[in-house]
Amino acid sequence: MTSNRPYLLRALYDWILANNMTPYLLVDATVKGVNVPTRYVKGGKIVLNVVPSAAHNLELGNEKVSFNARFNGKQYQIIFPVKAVTAIYARENGKGLIFPDDDHDSESHQKTEPNPKQHLKVIK
Amino acid sequence: MTSNRPYLLRALYDWILANNMTPYLLVDATVKGVNVPTRYVKGGKIVLNVVPSAAHNLELGNEKVSFNARFNGKQYQIIFPVKAVTAIYARENGKGLIFPDDDHDSESHQKTEPNPKQHLKVIK
Repeated sequence: MTSNRPYLLRALYDWILANNMTPYLLVDATVKGVNVPTRYVKGGKIVLNVVPSAAHNLELGNEKVSFNARFNGKQYQIIFPVKAVTAIYARENGKGLIFPDDDHDSESHQKTEPNPKQHLKVIK
Repeated sequence: MTSNRPYLLRALYDWILANNMTPYLLVDATVKGVNVPTRYVKGGKIVLNVVPSAAHNLELGNEKVSFNARFNGKQYQIIFPVKAVTAIYARENGKGLIFPDDDHDSESHQKTEPNPKQHLKVIK
């Protein structure tokens, strides 16, 4: 079965916008294929504002997320795999979803026993 | 902020269909406004097959879910509030989401302390 992460990502994005709030993505910049301005990466992660007025030509695809944005006045083309998205939440109140690490890329990870504690977490 | 349950429900529905599987809903038939054939309710719950070929005119709205379906050859109009949906999963492998009880209808429930263990659960 394919990953449900892109479906959940689009759902939460729509939900946050429908509530007139600002969707932020927390992205793991250490994942292969992440193309973001490295000077804004902190501790291996980058926070990206994906509100339509800031993220132009946003595409939340099944495999990749891409958009154009300005950082400190400079234009960047941002692209990263959906599996690098660690969380999506509203800037205003922090509500959203944290995605479990275990579904990153099962083929590149050692097989482990299923952990019942690994789950989606609603940020309240 | 509005409930994110309808957004997650539509997301998982699309995901299950995209994987050529059969989406099932587990619905709490004790919630006010649930209109389902009572003879198929077991222990206060009903399982509903919402694959397009079985659930006609399906609407997964922000407030209500409705569709027409046959049970034992008889036509029923099914309608229930989104908050009555306890889970959505694929019949073929059980993968999907269980929704937490606590976000049913906070106004009709006694106020309780937030419980950090209440979360969405990925059914694996």
